[in-house]
Amino acid sequence: MIIQSYRGPYRVDFLDRPITMADIGEGELHPVVDARVAALYADRLGPLFDNPNTILIEATEPNKSIERIIPVIERMVANKIKRGHRIVAVGGGIIQDISCFIATTLMRGIDWQFLPTTLLAQADSCIGSKSSINMGEAKNILGTFNPPGQILVDPHFLDTLDPIDVRSGIGEIIKVHAIAGPAAYDRLAADFSALTTDRKVLARFMRDALSIKQSYIETDEFDRGIRNIFNYGHSFGHAIEAATQFAIPHGIAVTMGMAMANHIAAARGLITLAQRDRMAPILFANFGAFGHHPVPLAELLAALTKDKKNTSTHLVVILPVGEDASIEKVPVAPDDAFNAQCAAALESLAA
Amino acid sequence: MIIQSYRGPYRVDFLDRPITMADIGEGELHPVVDARVAALYADRLGPLFDNPNTILIEATEPNKSIERIIPVIERMVANKIKRGHRIVAVGGGIIQDISCFIATTLMRGIDWQFLPTTLLAQADSCIGSKSSINMGEAKNILGTFNPPGQILVDPHFLDTLDPIDVRSGIGEIIKVHAIAGPAAYDRLAADFSALTTDRKVLARFMRDALSIKQSYIETDEFDRGIRNIFNYGHSFGHAIEAATQFAIPHGIAVTMGMAMANHIAAARGLITLAQRDRMAPILFANFGAFGHHPVPLAELLAALTKDKKNTSTHLVVILPVGEDASIEKVPVAPDDAFNAQCAAALESLAA
Repeated sequence: MIIQSYRGPYRVDFLDRPITMADIGEGELHPVVDARVAALYADRLGPLFDNPNTILIEATEPNKSIERIIPVIERMVANKIKRGHRIVAVGGGIIQDISCFIATTLMRGIDWQFLPTTLLAQADSCIGSKSSINMGEAKNILGTFNPPGQILVDPHFLDTLDPIDVRSGIGEIIKVHAIAGPAAYDRLAADFSALTTDRKVLARFMRDALSIKQSYIETDEFDRGIRNIFNYGHSFGHAIEAATQFAIPHGIAVTMGMAMANHIAAARGLITLAQRDRMAPILFANFGAFGHHPVPLAELLAALTKDKKNTSTHLVVILPVGEDASIEKVPVAPDDAFNAQCAAALESLAA
Repeated sequence: MIIQSYRGPYRVDFLDRPITMADIGEGELHPVVDARVAALYADRLGPLFDNPNTILIEATEPNKSIERIIPVIERMVANKIKRGHRIVAVGGGIIQDISCFIATTLMRGIDWQFLPTTLLAQADSCIGSKSSINMGEAKNILGTFNPPGQILVDPHFLDTLDPIDVRSGIGEIIKVHAIAGPAAYDRLAADFSALTTDRKVLARFMRDALSIKQSYIETDEFDRGIRNIFNYGHSFGHAIEAATQFAIPHGIAVTMGMAMANHIAAARGLITLAQRDRMAPILFANFGAFGHHPVPLAELLAALTKDKKNTSTHLVVILPVGEDASIEKVPVAPDDAFNAQCAAALESLAA
């Protein structure tokens, strides 16, 4: 798969056997590696992790802050990183965010290569150029656009994932299929139970998800227009994460966010109840018992209005609209009616 | 003047009368202003400087560090900056660097508008998308590419410049004319004395400099190839700055760097002595007494090898080459012969 970007085209290579050092290739490498992955895959990628330039990072939210990234850059500079060298990022979204931000800003751009190890990263975030970085208390307030030069997708990394992190990745796969329309969504729904039992089925929908996303990011890499609809489930999902102090994994919160969006869209008459109910089963199956996790409404509403996507006094939410449940940007007034719809949508998750 | 960029086209508007608030236009503004400029131009742009969002910054080298930029971003966040708002940068290169870096990384991109107030910024740096930021002891180690949406050039700001800062800007104007070739260079040389006495002549060569630069930055915005030649005078100039603890202003050091590059090119047989001597007079006139400033050779050579442009064991320097003194990238071995040429070139500056 070749993706067009403002920085030139970049490749996604899907491996059907476990990755080896040969796949990574030659060059002056500066590996940035999830410490947990380094411990699990030392037999396969030992020389990469033993590189004197290698920086191991715990994939925690505080570590993707500008305050903690500065010392990482300082170590790279001490390791004499130069233009023409390559950062090799091995991990999930947090390692991707850190590596992308550094690869954009260090010397105005260092080549980077990405080995995504989570389903969220393999099926969704690895393409699209974005990074998101925290600063102090402000989550994801900083960021850049800068795709890797190459992405190497090895589904064998998924073997050691916690099942809840597989569910989290499936959340994004559902989202992308909802954007592609009812036919794609229903195809996914028909095979839904096989996603967690048959790696080939999962790999197929993962590739489909990347293909669907490709056309949007190639059209709107800087997220100024049509690409906004990829925030379907995310405005509500981010608010759920914030209101629960991140007790709910990202892709699960996004799945709950899509169910909320559909509920609110139906309440506002934008889709029929039949559309809402057609889409509901795989959403509820995916977030499962998290639907019973308490989410304080006041905190959720406060987080919604702080979302960086919202540019003025009204909110912009992403909702399904019309007979084909097309995913669209919808401006809404944050009035009592909307608040009541949010409350009802939140309650419906525990149904 | 309309410049094409990966972020879309952007405008350079040349004003023939002092700028007013009306030129800046409407919108939610977050001014980032050189404190000295704010004090000098309060009568003309008072409402901009009195905006509650305005952040005044002393244009000092330590202030363009990531460590000091973080609190600036924190103030913008406290001022509730959102996508769709606009940063208005008023000042020279340091204010441009800070504003560009923030405008690239805050929420992955905020629109920004630039009112350059120095000749260096008006005649050169305002176009080309680059920012350069310090981190700890590492100068210009971080940076981004992100042009303003609009640049408003008001030459009246130059009235309050220190004469040495006018010389500094003229250094970059000479550089760009050298790149354009002997005819352009000799045209500039013929009118050289009028640059500091006749604002209309200065304005004409300033526009010419931007026009020459335009074609290169549109072809190679990310400085991967042909645009590298704009470092003519800069590898040596940066080394002179570093070796003198920045006692010599940037554009003056660049002018000295061009004289060094020409001297070395002649010593290596890349240009004739006649070419070197044709180009010398306006260079020596522009750096003037700074040619006698002591520059320790060992520190200069050490700084040259640390330049971030150099990607491996050899150095890449930008030198005039051939019968038309074409400005080109030249790989050189950092051997005894090169060191001796640097020493002789340095000595020649005091001639």
